[in-house]
Amino acid sequence: MNVNGKPYRTIWLKQSDERQVQIIDQRNLPHEFNIETIGNVASMARAIQEMHVRGAGLIGAAAGYGMYLAALEASESDDFDQSLESSYQALKETRPTAVNLAWALDRQMAAMARETSPVDKIAIAISTAHEIADEDASFCASIGRHGLELIREISNRKGNAESVNILTHCNAGWLAFVDHGSATAPIYAAHDAGLPVHVYVDETRPRNQGARLTAWELGQHGVPYTLIADNVGGHLMQHGKVDLVLTGTDRTAVSGDVANKIGTYLKALAAKDNGVPFYVALPSSTFDWNIRDGVAEIPIEQRDDEEVTFAQGLCDGALKRVRLSPESSPAANYAFDVTPARLVTGLITERGICEANEASILGLFPEKRV
Amino acid sequence: MNVNGKPYRTIWLKQSDERQVQIIDQRNLPHEFNIETIGNVASMARAIQEMHVRGAGLIGAAAGYGMYLAALEASESDDFDQSLESSYQALKETRPTAVNLAWALDRQMAAMARETSPVDKIAIAISTAHEIADEDASFCASIGRHGLELIREISNRKGNAESVNILTHCNAGWLAFVDHGSATAPIYAAHDAGLPVHVYVDETRPRNQGARLTAWELGQHGVPYTLIADNVGGHLMQHGKVDLVLTGTDRTAVSGDVANKIGTYLKALAAKDNGVPFYVALPSSTFDWNIRDGVAEIPIEQRDDEEVTFAQGLCDGALKRVRLSPESSPAANYAFDVTPARLVTGLITERGICEANEASILGLFPEKRV
Repeated sequence: MNVNGKPYRTIWLKQSDERQVQIIDQRNLPHEFNIETIGNVASMARAIQEMHVRGAGLIGAAAGYGMYLAALEASESDDFDQSLESSYQALKETRPTAVNLAWALDRQMAAMARETSPVDKIAIAISTAHEIADEDASFCASIGRHGLELIREISNRKGNAESVNILTHCNAGWLAFVDHGSATAPIYAAHDAGLPVHVYVDETRPRNQGARLTAWELGQHGVPYTLIADNVGGHLMQHGKVDLVLTGTDRTAVSGDVANKIGTYLKALAAKDNGVPFYVALPSSTFDWNIRDGVAEIPIEQRDDEEVTFAQGLCDGALKRVRLSPESSPAANYAFDVTPARLVTGLITERGICEANEASILGLFPEKRV
Repeated sequence: MNVNGKPYRTIWLKQSDERQVQIIDQRNLPHEFNIETIGNVASMARAIQEMHVRGAGLIGAAAGYGMYLAALEASESDDFDQSLESSYQALKETRPTAVNLAWALDRQMAAMARETSPVDKIAIAISTAHEIADEDASFCASIGRHGLELIREISNRKGNAESVNILTHCNAGWLAFVDHGSATAPIYAAHDAGLPVHVYVDETRPRNQGARLTAWELGQHGVPYTLIADNVGGHLMQHGKVDLVLTGTDRTAVSGDVANKIGTYLKALAAKDNGVPFYVALPSSTFDWNIRDGVAEIPIEQRDDEEVTFAQGLCDGALKRVRLSPESSPAANYAFDVTPARLVTGLITERGICEANEASILGLFPEKRV
């Protein structure tokens, strides 16, 4: 999507030197927009581990390009296979719980195993890296096309004059993928199609991904938005100011239960209470085909308490952390919650929209029937 | 309640000089505990206006003591009545929408009007100021006694071994009143009675009254608590980690609809969805006997956007403000929301506990029947 009026992906090969990868370093967004050039596996591993890049789709793409850099390095070493294997391990350890990471690494290893010469292995690595990135962008674009129809319906119902007001939580934006995003894809598609859309962006404490990332990417692409505290969505829905809630998901049970950023469940409750449609956008890679009871079975990560007791932002031109609470205040920091399927109006996938139940999900993905 | 092991009210006469009033200056809590001595009406007006003191009950008490200072000043002026009237106006303009402010000022004016000599007017002003403060503290203590029984029941049901886990939103604590608080009164009463209680404190963005004030006062009094982001309560309730939600209210419709800090409605929805009792504690002065449909009729104040786009806290020993969002990010800042009576299990008042409906409320306050 656009940054300063110019289209970007979150990761790409450097135009003047295709032996190097470039990424948007997301750490200091929205206060600084930095492009980082990555020329070796160690730097890519650091970029993934230290979250210069983050988000399921983008981590997969970064792993794909990381393995291309690994092939380049291996070709200059004494033992191609051993060098490749050690790069594979180094990349795999960066974010142990990221499903897309291992998936992309294994896909690259399998592709290279089919070739014999280092030159061919490098060639297949680069084309596989592009495939992984293009697939991610293309799945998100498909989500955008399907979701666009939902927004168009609402816009038609409102007479296409007034904006369609969409509330989103956290960042399921293009910054978390290669392009388009999941929850944001229908929004960008609608905006680019000339439909009037306006987004309420939950700031998403404690890490403020909404205030930092979603606000930034919508603003850069020119989509009108309003930043709100996480407490506000219920009030807006009570007063008819939200037409659609649209979020991403980190893991989706085959029953339709959705694990997403902490606080999503509260917005789903408010949507239900006020008759506002609540949709979740996802590439099908986030389905967990083995889980049926999301609330009971999906483990919820707890993170550092200091994310709650402090806030980070820009002060006098530098990034600073301020303490919000009394010193040594105890705190708890649950990163995700699970929204039961009964609160989810529908799932927007790359294959189309389905209801949040096993029959409807398997209708779109019949190959997953056991 | 206790601060550094010593019992305090939020406002009192200076022991060594009863011509001066002392308050806890709440502006820099929890980072600094400052006591301010106030010797004239202008200083009291500034303390109310600039929120050294805040909260309905405490504003009323501050106005009461302010009128005592006004009587002292008037007795040293050429025209007692004219001086008093001008002090009355100055105090009245400090927080135009605070109902308790005008109520306390008028009560003082009426009391002084019944006396003739300046000496007697001063005497009645000081006793009225004490009455206003004592009534506030005594109403809150009564709320505490009634609410204690609720907590005791839950504790008995849990076998009195495990803590009773109470979630609260914003600060309806003793800092907002003269002592005890409204939502916190049952918690302090239970803790002081030896019942094991533990409080989940919502940080309450954007002004962080939970992280700053509720966390501080619970910690100072020795009540175990855990600070959480506003997004977390639903997840905790889903997993049986909350036994009771207890909040205050800024305005309560006679139907039982409750206007309280933005985000209260979301917690009430989560409580309902998980069968957790949701109680609201209030002195009866917050009832609005003329309003029946809270969602439609209670106007919701919008505050400065910068409360959302910035956060304030301690950094390198000084209070600093950090920008959270992109520069010039649009934001909206609704201060309150309305929780419909159907989500409220009960109201804890100074006269006892009632259901959140007109018949039950008027059963406790029969003199309000029209």
